[in-house]
Amino acid sequence: MIEVRGYAAHDDHSPLVPFTFQRREPGPHDVQIEILYAGICHSDVHQAHNDWSNSLYPMVPGHEIVGRVVKVGAEVKKLKAGDIAGVGCMVDSCRQCSACKEDLEQYCEQGAILTYNDKARSYKERPGSGQLTFGGYSEQIVVEERFVVKVPAGMDLKAVAPLLCAGITTWSPLRHWKVGSGQKVGVIGLGGLGHMGVKFAKALGAHVVMITTSPEKGKDAKRLGADEVLLSRDTDAMAAHALSFDFLLNTIPVGHDVNPYLALLKRDSTMVMVGVLTAIEPPVTGVSLIGGRKNLTGSGIGGMAETQEMIDFCAEHGIVSDIEMIPIQAVNQAYERVLKNDVKYRFVIDIASLRDAA
Amino acid sequence: MIEVRGYAAHDDHSPLVPFTFQRREPGPHDVQIEILYAGICHSDVHQAHNDWSNSLYPMVPGHEIVGRVVKVGAEVKKLKAGDIAGVGCMVDSCRQCSACKEDLEQYCEQGAILTYNDKARSYKERPGSGQLTFGGYSEQIVVEERFVVKVPAGMDLKAVAPLLCAGITTWSPLRHWKVGSGQKVGVIGLGGLGHMGVKFAKALGAHVVMITTSPEKGKDAKRLGADEVLLSRDTDAMAAHALSFDFLLNTIPVGHDVNPYLALLKRDSTMVMVGVLTAIEPPVTGVSLIGGRKNLTGSGIGGMAETQEMIDFCAEHGIVSDIEMIPIQAVNQAYERVLKNDVKYRFVIDIASLRDAA
Repeated sequence: MIEVRGYAAHDDHSPLVPFTFQRREPGPHDVQIEILYAGICHSDVHQAHNDWSNSLYPMVPGHEIVGRVVKVGAEVKKLKAGDIAGVGCMVDSCRQCSACKEDLEQYCEQGAILTYNDKARSYKERPGSGQLTFGGYSEQIVVEERFVVKVPAGMDLKAVAPLLCAGITTWSPLRHWKVGSGQKVGVIGLGGLGHMGVKFAKALGAHVVMITTSPEKGKDAKRLGADEVLLSRDTDAMAAHALSFDFLLNTIPVGHDVNPYLALLKRDSTMVMVGVLTAIEPPVTGVSLIGGRKNLTGSGIGGMAETQEMIDFCAEHGIVSDIEMIPIQAVNQAYERVLKNDVKYRFVIDIASLRDAA
Repeated sequence: MIEVRGYAAHDDHSPLVPFTFQRREPGPHDVQIEILYAGICHSDVHQAHNDWSNSLYPMVPGHEIVGRVVKVGAEVKKLKAGDIAGVGCMVDSCRQCSACKEDLEQYCEQGAILTYNDKARSYKERPGSGQLTFGGYSEQIVVEERFVVKVPAGMDLKAVAPLLCAGITTWSPLRHWKVGSGQKVGVIGLGGLGHMGVKFAKALGAHVVMITTSPEKGKDAKRLGADEVLLSRDTDAMAAHALSFDFLLNTIPVGHDVNPYLALLKRDSTMVMVGVLTAIEPPVTGVSLIGGRKNLTGSGIGGMAETQEMIDFCAEHGIVSDIEMIPIQAVNQAYERVLKNDVKYRFVIDIASLRDAA
């Protein structure tokens, strides 16, 4: 076993504290990675705090991981020691269901195994089965090759980390619903997800409209590449944009009234929810869907093949996240700022701070 | 002008009573129809009672109309005196928007003109512009050719009437989402819409599952053509059908919890709402949409071309509605029974009873 230092939450309301645990030695299909950077996702905070009532402790959060490969198993093909690798929200899946066979492991019918706050399940007889998974706020991680992406040379690695969750979560729906040139696309909400949505939709050739409550965020969205800003509280402006959008990417992370946004869509068009897992309320009305045959849908992260595609696209187009780097000792303060949306647009933990403290 | 007798509501809570009004003489594009039968749609009751707070009085309900053509204008091509004709929920639309140009008048961006409880709007300079529209609980109606379908010979006309709303409302989504053989399709709720949904999905070749709270309705659904019955309150049965449906047609006419139904859908599949216009509550959750990229959508009636297609399909496949015929003098009692779901599956008014009473 490999002894690994990290930071963990031990209870619903406790701060994250130093924590030492063990990971398996790499098997023939495994990649052992020395972690360099770990992004802080809003869902890290939700889970550390047990907001979704499904937290398993001790919990080492972190599913936006970039690091250097230190060792690979004998069967590993796509990575070798010294390569830069990324790990996102999943570390395993059943491999047998239709979703896994179509490279959509995130929709695994048995449930993908999450990078943290999860356990290997009974369908899987692999090393570490049944044990808690531990995430990226740690020195090292060992992951099967299928769930590791290769990061092309020359990228700003600390700003690559958030691509593994915020990036793929917005990339996957933009690609699945074939967003591209000639389309008017709205990105609703400007945070970790929204800022990646703007960058990707623009790079894919769409006319991008940032839809936000905040004129200030609107300005920043233009800096990120938005062509237009639509203030959602301006009812006249909203009416002027009615029936005009080809696609809406809704990144708001809490329940809210989606009916005014559905009214923006063209007939037969789609709004995809990527930020909210809980109740979408006030409720959607039947008439919002029936009038113009609008689609309300959702999308979760992305499969491993499309995650690799996204990273390669980012390398080619010079896209990374806008980040603020912190030492791991500042993680609890960062969580407080995440809850206040006081970050542009992602905190990234410099894992060197963990090693240096030892 | 043509003097026409009918039945009208005059206030939110008043019963329908005899009412005489005028219709325009047919213009060059108009068809004048002697009404034979008028179905009673659940929405007639809602609107007569002002449940949607948009009622215009006096109101002559009725948008499931079958009758005999008595006169046509000089420019009318597809119908002649003596033909049997049908009129549904719309009598006009702008003809200029993308929806109208694609034969989807029900999604007219200016708003289609409804057969009753509506007025001609300012974009339209036609005879009768600005006047209230009056529906099918009456002796005669005058409608522009585009909004009239031709009913093939040999059909049971009284049972054809409900096809003009209940029929097309279920036909249009089944066709739009390409329901056919090899698919497992669920019809949720067995009423006026649901019973047509079962007949159409079966005739289109799907494996049809009636999803209902009531074992009795389940039995009746099998008589109508359902292959299987799934009782929505049986949580084990619901779990056994999880992730197995290619398409769900949700005909429940009131707000309800759609999350258990979304769990039945295969990844990337669609549930279409056709019965509820108001709030869909308890609210849908983000995770119900995100887990498997499910689509929640809606569909309203259908365009005139697809209404003709549906009537022709019904003639070819021997499909009509299951109805109970009443004289118009019994309309208020029928409304009470509609509110109790005490009808299998549609009341149809014999308009001869209106003429005989004169």
